[in-house]
Amino acid sequence: MKFEAIINHINKFANPSEEEIQSFIDILELENISSREYLIKEGQYCNYNHFIVKGCFRSFFTNKKGVEKTVNFGIEDWWLTDFDSFMNKTQTQLNIQATEDAVILKVSKSNLDIVLQSSLEINKYFRVILERVRIADQRRIQFMFNLSGEELYNTFYEYNPEFVQRIPQYMLASYLGFTPEFLSKIRTKKHS
Amino acid sequence: MKFEAIINHINKFANPSEEEIQSFIDILELENISSREYLIKEGQYCNYNHFIVKGCFRSFFTNKKGVEKTVNFGIEDWWLTDFDSFMNKTQTQLNIQATEDAVILKVSKSNLDIVLQSSLEINKYFRVILERVRIADQRRIQFMFNLSGEELYNTFYEYNPEFVQRIPQYMLASYLGFTPEFLSKIRTKKHS
Repeated sequence: MKFEAIINHINKFANPSEEEIQSFIDILELENISSREYLIKEGQYCNYNHFIVKGCFRSFFTNKKGVEKTVNFGIEDWWLTDFDSFMNKTQTQLNIQATEDAVILKVSKSNLDIVLQSSLEINKYFRVILERVRIADQRRIQFMFNLSGEELYNTFYEYNPEFVQRIPQYMLASYLGFTPEFLSKIRTKKHS
Repeated sequence: MKFEAIINHINKFANPSEEEIQSFIDILELENISSREYLIKEGQYCNYNHFIVKGCFRSFFTNKKGVEKTVNFGIEDWWLTDFDSFMNKTQTQLNIQATEDAVILKVSKSNLDIVLQSSLEINKYFRVILERVRIADQRRIQFMFNLSGEELYNTFYEYNPEFVQRIPQYMLASYLGFTPEFLSKIRTKKHS
């Protein structure tokens, strides 16, 4: 059933009635995305937030030196968008690209706002998710301040073992702020 | 009136009824905090979230080399806590300290949860605030990836001119990941 993953996810963090669930899934659109296809590209307006049913994505920007910098990853049960663009209707500076064949459910800002006007539990669901994202972002900022390259990799591995298997190493290196060569050296040391 | 700032802030982002406002302010406790006093200290449990009515705070941790690293600042109309500790009931790794004499409204997790069970608009208020925090965190992570030291300072100055005047320079240097000497050099160049 195409809404099973999202319904399970909502029920994990909130207690919506059947009507609240129905009003929410009524505004979701299912989409298949091929590997390497873009959900959004730099310069566009992010009119949608995306729930990942299947697959893996990365968001990245190209810095002034022309180097791709990976900002985030997303896998099953994550919401992914450029929040600044989605909320404030600004042009995004990010690209979001599938790293595997994927299935998403997307919701437009205007439809989501309508449901959020009347559903306490859908508000709660997104509030709780944002609390968890806030914790992850804060942890990441602290790590960026405090950990050596090798510790960053080990910590990432500990928190996200499934990512390390799924994503190309040059993307992971970029996310951690390494060169691919440096990452390769750390991995050899860790796994040998 | 001691709840004026928080009521204005809620009304800016949500549309609560008088009853919803009342149920929320009933669970707030006013507290005066002296400059340099701690709201929370490393190793404690953050049972409260704090709304800043007046004053300025910083959150920081001490890294493995014994150096204080400033993670966040907060001024009027900001909520400040260690979210990880507050949500997950873990010991905090952070310190939150007043950098000026301050007035806060604090709310316990258990009381907040009760209000959030029944008020759509208070859920909405915290959801919208968290969306804005998410945008700021993402912007910061992108800046940390992409900007030179001088650009980081200029960007911080542009987004937060009021902070630069209010906080001790060594704290700002720590927040931006600089030595105080490096910050002093950039400031001299910018403002001369």
